Amino acid sequence: MNSVAQVVAVMGRGVVAPQTPLMLADDLGFTRGDGCFDALRVVVEDDTTRVDHLDRHLARFARSSAALELTAPDEIAWRRLIASALEAWKVPGEAVLKLVRTRGPEYLGGGLTELLTITPAPDASRARAGVTATTLDRGFASDAFGSAPWLLGGVKSLSYAVNVAAKREAARRGVDEAVFTSSDGFLLEGPTAGLLIAADDQLWTTPAAGTGVLESVTIAVITDAASAEGVGTNEALLRAADLPGTDGVWLVSAIRGVLPVLELDGVQLPNDPRLTRHLTRTAGF
Amino acid sequence: MNSVAQVVAVMGRGVVAPQTPLMLADDLGFTRGDGCFDALRVVVEDDTTRVDHLDRHLARFARSSAALELTAPDEIAWRRLIASALEAWKVPGEAVLKLVRTRGPEYLGGGLTELLTITPAPDASRARAGVTATTLDRGFASDAFGSAPWLLGGVKSLSYAVNVAAKREAARRGVDEAVFTSSDGFLLEGPTAGLLIAADDQLWTTPAAGTGVLESVTIAVITDAASAEGVGTNEALLRAADLPGTDGVWLVSAIRGVLPVLELDGVQLPNDPRLTRHLTRTAGF
Repeated sequence: MNSVAQVVAVMGRGVVAPQTPLMLADDLGFTRGDGCFDALRVVVEDDTTRVDHLDRHLARFARSSAALELTAPDEIAWRRLIASALEAWKVPGEAVLKLVRTRGPEYLGGGLTELLTITPAPDASRARAGVTATTLDRGFASDAFGSAPWLLGGVKSLSYAVNVAAKREAARRGVDEAVFTSSDGFLLEGPTAGLLIAADDQLWTTPAAGTGVLESVTIAVITDAASAEGVGTNEALLRAADLPGTDGVWLVSAIRGVLPVLELDGVQLPNDPRLTRHLTRTAGF
Repeated sequence: MNSVAQVVAVMGRGVVAPQTPLMLADDLGFTRGDGCFDALRVVVEDDTTRVDHLDRHLARFARSSAALELTAPDEIAWRRLIASALEAWKVPGEAVLKLVRTRGPEYLGGGLTELLTITPAPDASRARAGVTATTLDRGFASDAFGSAPWLLGGVKSLSYAVNVAAKREAARRGVDEAVFTSSDGFLLEGPTAGLLIAADDQLWTTPAAGTGVLESVTIAVITDAASAEGVGTNEALLRAADLPGTDGVWLVSAIRGVLPVLELDGVQLPNDPRLTRHLTRTAGF
């Protein structure tokens, strides 16, 4: 066993020892990836603990559940479970709070499996200074999801094997990150991050309808703040070839923050550290 | 708890009580669908137990593992684990043997999670008499997978949420099954079954290269037998509109057998019960 600190809490049961085996062999989250999750940043600093954008993440968690036709999460019970887990988490610095719901055991049910984990966040300091990336074709046309709800566009499901494989492919290509593109050549999102672009004095995001991209909580926080500051925000389908003419490109993650993409497919992209700092602060990092 | 009979066995541990919690909260098979499985039919009849096409399923299981860059399964250990589980399974009739491998716990590892379950097979007698089906767009072009190994075409991964959602969509449409189509309109496979077509005195299957369809063990058994009998077998990309002009269309599953598709998108399809019986026997059902 490694010695990484970890808090595990189970709905209806509270905090348990992290070494506690929890899932039955026939849990559908396990055998089918049939469930959803959400991931939030926890920061422990000066004896205080905070969770970033909890309301928005809980709302997305509920939307993922609904798209999978799971019963709605009990928000009060989840907030209580999260609070008890945070009380048990004492490691200074950044951590990942992951919420998970599955359809539960197939044969030995009882109902949904619901649990959470808190683990130390990977060190993102280098990525926050800038990342290199490769585009990877996600195989779907940019309008594939609109009329096909069974494709689970925008759902943060437990079926993430392709996202994990894309990260392995990026590493194999010697870059830090992948940016998925549609089969018709438009930039979509990263395997575990949203895509944000600055151009023409506006912020640009990938439209969710049709493309199947996940709504990024952290990007929504940024664009809401931008709108409040009078900065225009808009959606657009852009191509990699459009990026050198912009003012900056970022991969945005609730855990790792706002990562400037310095190079995509070997092409250098505009980099404005001042703008990155502003977006980072806006996102709460 | 329901009272469905179940055998659960864990690599390195053997048969355990089915109510034994096994997976840690951070198992990557659970949090990311990052693993693979295979499913085989078990038949208990007249005091004998047999597993259908074990060698071929183990070979596919190894191919899925390789595509996910998991270490190769220890075939001898798996055969031993399967044998011990079969010894514990006494329910007459058909059952499902499911083999599962995941990348294991993310933080508290130790290596892969490897286990199997045996559960009663769902009653397929009605489906074997014929099913109705709807086409559902899988969103990928028929050549999407050839140059994109990160899309995990042909891998029986644990990330099956879309397959499960497609089955829910079929039920919502009042039919028994779904048949996935490519975005360019070609018939691919079912969410948990391969597609077999008879036409021009030959058997036709969906080409695996490019389409991402799973190689069906049971279809391979049928086409190998057909070749041995001198019947031609071939691959083709066909459209739903081509089917009324064929001699028959089947969804083929290792568990449920050879299911004639009597109606697709409300259009009646050719039905040759004699041919269905022949294919069914060939597949070992």
